[in-house]
Amino acid sequence: MSIVVSIPGVDKTHWWVEQLQVLLPNWTIRPIDDPGDAEAVTYAVVWKPATGAFLAFPNLKAIVSLGAGIDHVLADAELPRRMPIIRTVGTDLTQRMREYVALHVLRHHRDMPTIAANQRERRWKPLVVPPATGRTVGVMGLGNLGGTAASTLAALGFETLGWSRTRHDIEGVTTHAGKAEFDAFLARCEILVCLLPLTEATTGILDARLFARLPRGASVINAGRGAHLVDDDLLAALESGQLYHATLDVFHLEPLPSEHPFWTHPQVTVTPHIASLIDAPTGSRIVAANIERFEATGHVEDLADAGRGY
Amino acid sequence: MSIVVSIPGVDKTHWWVEQLQVLLPNWTIRPIDDPGDAEAVTYAVVWKPATGAFLAFPNLKAIVSLGAGIDHVLADAELPRRMPIIRTVGTDLTQRMREYVALHVLRHHRDMPTIAANQRERRWKPLVVPPATGRTVGVMGLGNLGGTAASTLAALGFETLGWSRTRHDIEGVTTHAGKAEFDAFLARCEILVCLLPLTEATTGILDARLFARLPRGASVINAGRGAHLVDDDLLAALESGQLYHATLDVFHLEPLPSEHPFWTHPQVTVTPHIASLIDAPTGSRIVAANIERFEATGHVEDLADAGRGY
Ligand SMILES: NC(=O)c1ccc[n+]([C@@H]2O[C@H](COP(=O)([O-])OP(=O)(O)OC[C@H]3O[C@@H](n4cnc5c(N)ncnc54)[C@H](OP(=O)(O)O)[C@@H]3O)[C@@H](O)[C@H]2O)c1
Ligand SMILES: NC(=O)c1ccc[n+]([C@@H]2O[C@H](COP(=O)([O-])OP(=O)(O)OC[C@H]3O[C@@H](n4cnc5c(N)ncnc54)[C@H](OP(=O)(O)O)[C@@H]3O)[C@@H](O)[C@H]2O)c1
Repeated sequence: MSIVVSIPGVDKTHWWVEQLQVLLPNWTIRPIDDPGDAEAVTYAVVWKPATGAFLAFPNLKAIVSLGAGIDHVLADAELPRRMPIIRTVGTDLTQRMREYVALHVLRHHRDMPTIAANQRERRWKPLVVPPATGRTVGVMGLGNLGGTAASTLAALGFETLGWSRTRHDIEGVTTHAGKAEFDAFLARCEILVCLLPLTEATTGILDARLFARLPRGASVINAGRGAHLVDDDLLAALESGQLYHATLDVFHLEPLPSEHPFWTHPQVTVTPHIASLIDAPTGSRIVAANIERFEATGHVEDLADAGRGY
Repeated sequence: MSIVVSIPGVDKTHWWVEQLQVLLPNWTIRPIDDPGDAEAVTYAVVWKPATGAFLAFPNLKAIVSLGAGIDHVLADAELPRRMPIIRTVGTDLTQRMREYVALHVLRHHRDMPTIAANQRERRWKPLVVPPATGRTVGVMGLGNLGGTAASTLAALGFETLGWSRTRHDIEGVTTHAGKAEFDAFLARCEILVCLLPLTEATTGILDARLFARLPRGASVINAGRGAHLVDDDLLAALESGQLYHATLDVFHLEPLPSEHPFWTHPQVTVTPHIASLIDAPTGSRIVAANIERFEATGHVEDLADAGRGY
């Protein structure tokens, strides 16, 4: 019974091997590039694993993604088919994401970018904006993270809309489902938040077509994945005035290359993939508990659906 | 039965006279400097009235403050003694204030000033902060505005403390009362929000003594009144590292003079007295309703206590 750990960075790998060994004393925990007996390996704990990394382990029962998204695992073209993938989510992750979404929606709602620019010019210019009750915000993706973010926005007083693949019922939130209701949803979103998982269906979803369907002057917050956004379409929509501002936490390439125009664009706020995370001590306890439960029962709540892609 | 209106600015005065006339058709509404029969005047609707402005009206029954604070009325040394003062508050005011407090507490909590500085330098530097459940914030003043702000912070997940003159009971908030419990409250506030009214007891309360009692590296948000803060003490506390950042919405002089060091201080966020307001159409309906109720019953919920000073 052994577990391999595959995380970019020697120090991090070392930390996780040691920490999981403390939490799972009956298991052998090793780094993926020094796995010992490959046939004994039944679980792999990974973040952005190398292509073909799992081919060496014929008895793998599940892959544990060190995050809510599984796109970094599915990116492996040689991933064993029908391999269960266990996501790592937890109250810390949800809590941090709702903070991030509340902060950045409020920043747009109260036009902090303009207030900050006025401060730099020493310009005293009171702006009056409607109360949140007169502002409509929309959340794409109503899962663990998007659902909680939408509830939080509704509790802050915003007129809150949500959109997901299947229908959800969230108190205080007007929900929409599927492609058929997408345009009606977009037409009302003055501030749009993307918390979708990255799948074939959602890649490039934040594009010119979508921006054109938002009310003129809308703002967009992307805390899903960088590949949800078509960067050039965003730049064009900001240029034309169709969009007013964007806050981006995730990018096609991370770290965002220093020559990328987002860094210096006055209408773009860049945050370095910090919207949410589970800190390592908390995360390792969740991972250990999920492995023990999956081993005992063959199921955990955080099991992803590789067919669906999230 | 007539009402005089005293507001800085001819256009604003004109707007209020017309608007109140529509809402109170049985009353005569006039600007204070053209009051008609002074003996007929029974109410004055005011924002920052001139000293001695009310001496001309022997039959005044109440003064209506166009705001939640009454300090601008009490500042008149010739104010008739025991004159009832009616505050103007409403759901809009409370809603806008809880947005402002949530936004600026989250900004400090998630260290947006540093993230914004990193963007200016194109520096990708993920910062990990605790979730709000691991962050303690405190609200001074638990009235209409402070009480709602504290509830909002608690609902966002913050460990929330409150302080007021008399004891309050607010779900999710650990409350403190009076001078005896002030230092114990301050000792825990990593982010401190001032929503006190300006009175003799609270003037200059945000001073070196108070800052020294906060945990080192705390942040302060002042949305009460400018005179709550001792400006030089704040600058010294930022300089020494005792405080990390301040967000200020109110100032001794407004507009904040362009040579004031707050404008350009990297650790000070200046907002131009926009934390909250009631927009004029909503406010005029509240004022009209309060006058009618006070005229009919001699009481309104928003009656201030001039002896107490708020
Ligand atoms: N920036 C960060 O720091 C950070 C941190 C963690 C996670 N994330 C990102 O956030 C994503 C969401 O995480 P989660 O835990 O909330 O995921 P989740 O629980 O799997 O929820 C995904 C949601 O998206 C909806 N969805 C999926 N495909 C869709 C489609 N084609 N059309 C419409 N809706 C669709 C799902 O609809 P149904 O409910 O109908 O299935 C579900 O509501 C992750 O995949 C990750 O990319 C970012
Ligand atoms: N920046 C802006 O845009 C803006 C907008 C509106 C108002 N304001 C400011 O916000 C202030 C508060 O408004 P509000 O409607 O919440 O007032 P409020 O309902 O009268 O509440 C005042 C609170 O402060 C407490 N307090 C008063 N004196 C105190 C003292 N010496 N020690 C401890 N606590 C004390 C009171 O305690 P008790 O409950 O025990 O009496 C009460 O909880 C206004 O006076 C105004 O200055 C600012």
